[in-house]
Amino acid sequence: VRNVYVIGVGMVRFGKYPDLWVEELGRQAIQAALLDAGLDPQRLGVVYCGHSHQGRVAGQRALKQAGMVGLEVINVENACAGGSTAFRQAYLAVASGLYDLALAVGMEKMGGGLLPANPEDLDGLQGRTLPGHYAMKAQRHMFEYGTTIEQMAMVSVKSHHNASLNPSAQYQEEVTLEQVLSSRLVADPLTLLQCCPAGDGAAAVILASYDEAKKYSIPFIRAAGSAVRSGGFVKSGEDILASPLTRETARVAYEMAGIGPKDVNVCECHDAFSIAEILHCENLGFCERGEGGRMIQEGKTGITGSVAVNPSGGLLSKGHPLGATGIAQVVEIVEQLRGRAGKRQVPEARVGLTHTLGGAIPELEAGVCSVHVFIRD
Amino acid sequence: VRNVYVIGVGMVRFGKYPDLWVEELGRQAIQAALLDAGLDPQRLGVVYCGHSHQGRVAGQRALKQAGMVGLEVINVENACAGGSTAFRQAYLAVASGLYDLALAVGMEKMGGGLLPANPEDLDGLQGRTLPGHYAMKAQRHMFEYGTTIEQMAMVSVKSHHNASLNPSAQYQEEVTLEQVLSSRLVADPLTLLQCCPAGDGAAAVILASYDEAKKYSIPFIRAAGSAVRSGGFVKSGEDILASPLTRETARVAYEMAGIGPKDVNVCECHDAFSIAEILHCENLGFCERGEGGRMIQEGKTGITGSVAVNPSGGLLSKGHPLGATGIAQVVEIVEQLRGRAGKRQVPEARVGLTHTLGGAIPELEAGVCSVHVFIRD
Repeated sequence: VRNVYVIGVGMVRFGKYPDLWVEELGRQAIQAALLDAGLDPQRLGVVYCGHSHQGRVAGQRALKQAGMVGLEVINVENACAGGSTAFRQAYLAVASGLYDLALAVGMEKMGGGLLPANPEDLDGLQGRTLPGHYAMKAQRHMFEYGTTIEQMAMVSVKSHHNASLNPSAQYQEEVTLEQVLSSRLVADPLTLLQCCPAGDGAAAVILASYDEAKKYSIPFIRAAGSAVRSGGFVKSGEDILASPLTRETARVAYEMAGIGPKDVNVCECHDAFSIAEILHCENLGFCERGEGGRMIQEGKTGITGSVAVNPSGGLLSKGHPLGATGIAQVVEIVEQLRGRAGKRQVPEARVGLTHTLGGAIPELEAGVCSVHVFIRD
Repeated sequence: VRNVYVIGVGMVRFGKYPDLWVEELGRQAIQAALLDAGLDPQRLGVVYCGHSHQGRVAGQRALKQAGMVGLEVINVENACAGGSTAFRQAYLAVASGLYDLALAVGMEKMGGGLLPANPEDLDGLQGRTLPGHYAMKAQRHMFEYGTTIEQMAMVSVKSHHNASLNPSAQYQEEVTLEQVLSSRLVADPLTLLQCCPAGDGAAAVILASYDEAKKYSIPFIRAAGSAVRSGGFVKSGEDILASPLTRETARVAYEMAGIGPKDVNVCECHDAFSIAEILHCENLGFCERGEGGRMIQEGKTGITGSVAVNPSGGLLSKGHPLGATGIAQVVEIVEQLRGRAGKRQVPEARVGLTHTLGGAIPELEAGVCSVHVFIRD
């Protein structure tokens, strides 16, 4: 397996774009990544497009908008992990030696009302949508480990602080602990500011072999580990905090990269809810099970903490346009490892990780998890 | 690039299954392919699922139905070419050396009324749906080359004859030239029996490296060439019969396989309409441009002709459940090259080809074409 490098990244600020087609959002992200790399698009070997709700051949439509026709284009769907799955396919294309240059793009325009994710999901129709499910996890975490409502709210305060330093974030205003706690209750104990927003966006990255990467004058970052796994391990009624899907996917990616969780300096994880980030910190191995609440309270996941978690603002504040999310996570990690993250720069970041979940209730149902590890050599 | 072999194939008879979920159709096809190969599913490295309208993480849902959890699963969408694109991804997974065993599954349950394919397609809303577009191509072919309505209808007669010999076909009754010509007019000159039906179905194939393939006692077939390209070359108003997308995709696949069109013994092509098969015969290089009508009239595309085209019955009679179609084409070619196609066996078939198109109007819009070549060594 060959080494693979990210040589270009680009994204459209996440937000609401009622006047733009998704193809136009995709075009902007693709051209930003090409410009970043200084790459002639004619040299691309293959394109993977991750999205969830954008209809047929959406990738081809975005590329045509960018004036790029005749390429090999594959649309990839893996629910909220569609973008990170597209990244993995582009990674494999280059790692295999079959392609020297590959583009991964993620894009999404969200309608309203995507819950329940599956309209035939009986659990969801009766209230076990994602907010309800994560609220149950939050209640259980409070019961088992003494995690507090304030600790969960601190995740959102940190998230909004980081996003206030990120020009690509959907919400760039800081919030106080009181504002988080007093915002509208969605599913007890999760308030509105502890749930990720709906929004539109696109992001793109360009991957290259070493021989190609060294032709470009920009700093490039190695994609050192990559894994995608599907869920369905856990049966209804089992431990609601068990997360074999994230744990197993992360294990594979760590092993591939030759690192462990303690080596990670910066992480973008799937913080669709405040409690989710706490759980992911445990399941990715940044702390022991039950310790996630204390970790945020002690500032260990802040930009200058032991591991910076979601310095971009994450799903909670940067936003979560489904298919775009996983690619935007890679954009953030690459910018951090390049040392180009501006006011939210994580000091001496050398190892980064992205983590994305997809599917109605990924651990329980037939969902998906992806974890990618990046290293600045 | 390593050699890749098909070691297992399976499909569900195409038809209407109002009482079955798509996950169940997928499960049946997957388990048929596993049984055909004699493969323990735990040994699979990766799964690609092609579909078009089956919602989020459909592949994971079908695998869970089959009791297969924890795998790497990627859902692939490329409109009607979704199945054949999934096949290509599985091919690349093994060819790259990254995986030794890969599964590609295609599945679809069709609602009614999928035209226009894109509800915002202004051309389609005004009548330039696929039947209208192919009817215009038919009119132009008649005008330029003297192709007759009878020649086009002969494609359907052959298709239904072949399907009458195929237990997996949706329609297994022969039709006469008169029946084809007198069926309801859909878009002049195309009658109902010259348009592919709506239906449900699923198909699956298992790909393996040589070292894996030789462990299994069944005959295995080499995937020798594979290409996917996207369209958008042709501008509105240009030559409506020009097909640079199919021609370019086929050129790449032929070159990769080290063969030319005259070497092909058996072909499954995207005959969504009778005129489409005539055009594909020209564009795949089986005859010169304008000669397609005479080719069918002279019986050259029959089971005992110079190249057997759609011995399965093709989209017109075997049926066309979108994402399942491209994989089912591979199933047919593999069975033909194994010599196991029963009453529709093409004599001495050694080289086979599949051809699939996807997208609203693939040549014109942002569609997709895939061509795969198979050789019995």
